[in-house]
Amino acid sequence: MSEPAEPLTPEETWSTLQRLLDRAEQESSPEAREAIMETVALFLQTLGPSDTARCFDRLDEDHRDRLFEYLDAESAADLIESLPTVQGTELLEHAAPEKAAAILEELPSDEQADLLTTLEPESFESILAVMDPDVAEATAALAAYPPYTAGGLMVREILAYEQSATAAEVIENLRRRIDEVDDYDVQYIYVTDEDDRLVGVLRLRDLLLARGSRPIRSFMITDPVSVRVEKPLEALVDVFEQRSFLGLPVVDDEQRLLGLVHRDSVDNAFHERDIGAHLREHGIVGGEELRSMPIALRAGRRLSWLSVNIVLNLMAASVIAAYQDTLSAAITLAVFLPIISDMSGCSGNQAVAVSMRELSLGIVKPLDVFYVWRKEIAVGAINGIVLGLLLAGTAWLWKGNPMLGVVVGTALAINTLVAVSIGGSVPLLLKRFGMDPALASGPILTTLTDVCGFFLVLSIASTFMSQLTGT
Amino acid sequence: MSEPAEPLTPEETWSTLQRLLDRAEQESSPEAREAIMETVALFLQTLGPSDTARCFDRLDEDHRDRLFEYLDAESAADLIESLPTVQGTELLEHAAPEKAAAILEELPSDEQADLLTTLEPESFESILAVMDPDVAEATAALAAYPPYTAGGLMVREILAYEQSATAAEVIENLRRRIDEVDDYDVQYIYVTDEDDRLVGVLRLRDLLLARGSRPIRSFMITDPVSVRVEKPLEALVDVFEQRSFLGLPVVDDEQRLLGLVHRDSVDNAFHERDIGAHLREHGIVGGEELRSMPIALRAGRRLSWLSVNIVLNLMAASVIAAYQDTLSAAITLAVFLPIISDMSGCSGNQAVAVSMRELSLGIVKPLDVFYVWRKEIAVGAINGIVLGLLLAGTAWLWKGNPMLGVVVGTALAINTLVAVSIGGSVPLLLKRFGMDPALASGPILTTLTDVCGFFLVLSIASTFMSQLTGT
Repeated sequence: MSEPAEPLTPEETWSTLQRLLDRAEQESSPEAREAIMETVALFLQTLGPSDTARCFDRLDEDHRDRLFEYLDAESAADLIESLPTVQGTELLEHAAPEKAAAILEELPSDEQADLLTTLEPESFESILAVMDPDVAEATAALAAYPPYTAGGLMVREILAYEQSATAAEVIENLRRRIDEVDDYDVQYIYVTDEDDRLVGVLRLRDLLLARGSRPIRSFMITDPVSVRVEKPLEALVDVFEQRSFLGLPVVDDEQRLLGLVHRDSVDNAFHERDIGAHLREHGIVGGEELRSMPIALRAGRRLSWLSVNIVLNLMAASVIAAYQDTLSAAITLAVFLPIISDMSGCSGNQAVAVSMRELSLGIVKPLDVFYVWRKEIAVGAINGIVLGLLLAGTAWLWKGNPMLGVVVGTALAINTLVAVSIGGSVPLLLKRFGMDPALASGPILTTLTDVCGFFLVLSIASTFMSQLTGT
Repeated sequence: MSEPAEPLTPEETWSTLQRLLDRAEQESSPEAREAIMETVALFLQTLGPSDTARCFDRLDEDHRDRLFEYLDAESAADLIESLPTVQGTELLEHAAPEKAAAILEELPSDEQADLLTTLEPESFESILAVMDPDVAEATAALAAYPPYTAGGLMVREILAYEQSATAAEVIENLRRRIDEVDDYDVQYIYVTDEDDRLVGVLRLRDLLLARGSRPIRSFMITDPVSVRVEKPLEALVDVFEQRSFLGLPVVDDEQRLLGLVHRDSVDNAFHERDIGAHLREHGIVGGEELRSMPIALRAGRRLSWLSVNIVLNLMAASVIAAYQDTLSAAITLAVFLPIISDMSGCSGNQAVAVSMRELSLGIVKPLDVFYVWRKEIAVGAINGIVLGLLLAGTAWLWKGNPMLGVVVGTALAINTLVAVSIGGSVPLLLKRFGMDPALASGPILTTLTDVCGFFLVLSIASTFMSQLTGT
């Protein structure tokens, strides 16, 4: 088949699922209900993992857990792989430990370890207790490595041979381990010495093209690039960026081979952190939010950030309060305060976006803050002047008061310069001091530009009050 | 070697480079200058591609072009691969057509096509004119496929054999083509019939484990999954999500094998569009911005978006202008207007971020807008009440006026509900009508919540004016 058959639309899938679940609910005989639930599980297994994930997300918790019981371990493992980690963990916690253990054994070892580390400690223990003791031990060891390090991202499934083996012996052994080989998605075969120390790497195609009697030592790639088990994610991203490997062997400090870290896992982990940063930038903190989560949790997490923000806002507003008399005397200024606040925020955010992008491309580093600032003020000056003139002209024409135009235009021009300076530099400064550039740029930027903008408008206005009000 | 030697810090690299370039400049003899530039090029080739890219970004255009001349075609190709496309294109346009052609021939065919399509038409023609005619023809054909389709993302480098060939014949042929095989990063070998139609796929490991006399037809995977050359990016992402292939063969409508699309290319293209969306969301429109670009271009692009925004802001501000008398009578309200505007914007942005995330995870679809809205108003109601009470209490304590608290608290509570409703739904609605959800959510959201927020504060205030001012 070259293209999969036309699937149900997402809405059709969802309504079919609901119809089936309703039927199961109305059924009084337990056997019939059982039969329907089994049918539903079969139906779900015919869908792609992303459709299944979407249906599971929309089900209520009760239906979700019950339906999950009817999936076989393999389908359940596929589903868990395509669900966000929080939901996968929840399903495993609610399942029987035997079922959870069977599902975990279907997953690659890095996914196992990820899920285990996010489980509640008591679920973690009870699942490990019913797993195959060898697997349990190895999995627990893997789960003990910190996440976002080579150890936390590696898989244990790896093919390694001793260097004195011949090509024919390796091929013969691979033939016997064909099932395992199929599961591993093999790209490289590793070569070790008698002490399990990594000494080389073998490409499948070289093995394919070598004469059978040659020892693998003679055509392996020696001095293979490897990474230490404690290497952090950022350093892994750099290594993979500089070299086009699909995976790298992971070794301990005596060069013993421990596992394999895939380029994909590194990319995904990096992307995951990126998404976290993007959500935090918009005020979703405390972990990923899905609409299927309990309302109180979602509201609470969003509020924790909003209430910090309200305090920052009050600080900015106190500048207005301090100049209340000025404002009273020239009430039209009140029309322009929100404009200056919003426009400066936008200009600053443009600079933040460019800095974040250049940081992620690696073409600026936290130490380049002065270089960035110099580049940014040139743009800030031009845009400040253009926007200031625009707003000044508008204010003059609208309210018939040229001095009003001078006041708000000057304030916007200066504040644009301030906003791009802050917006361009703050992400680099935060990164330099080990803080998350995404989280803080927004509120810091907004508060600072608001305080400065309000102060500029109102202090300039109070200086030129007589010209402004014509008295 | 297991870990690369400690490299220079980015700052050391940059200052070394500058020192070398300064020396070249001061040198009066052309031969000596030549020698220094060659040294600089050698020095650059010892750096990783990302450090080289960073240095190139910081050089001025003149130095960049001159230094680029001294890189050999292979290093130049590596550099181009790690630079943002805009910069790579510029370097090629400034280089001699022969040099540019030599560099392009070092790149994989999909990168070639990408670069060629972004070149100015005259550069495109003059480079093609000096390329090997066969390569030029094939590259031009590839460049003609629309970007973000299977054709635009595929590579032509692919290994294919006729189905009657035996395992031994294929291995023998691979041995002869070893250089080519090395370049291709081979994962699969494709099998065709006598009319070049795709009939199967061969895994390297199966070839490795098969007896030499067997025709490949007998152990190939039949009915291979393939994608049509016109398949769009989104559909490719779905296919790769549902199946764990590293690459898929691309065929025309008669099932003839045209090329191979790599999972990486699809992921990168998708990520590229995502980044574009993220930049646009923050007001960087008209393509990627790098700080090394000319200031006028950067300022102009940012202004094009800011000037739309200023018009939207004026619309929102005209609500305040309409209630200027109310504001005059209760000037303290002016302190709270920016708070309500900013807080509602934040609440709305949280909802936008969750919707964008759920859209990208595929767990909500554009048609789910009613479901999303229902889920969002529950959170909006809770957070609106909490934030409203907070602001009401603050206003009362700060200004000693309980009625002021009632007015601003009620306005914030209602406006939070409005903001999350808009924020949650607008990205889905935009996507449904084929528009970019990232671009419009920000300005649309801000304008609507500002208009609504200002109107709520000021209309409630004017209704209860006598209680508010105690007159």
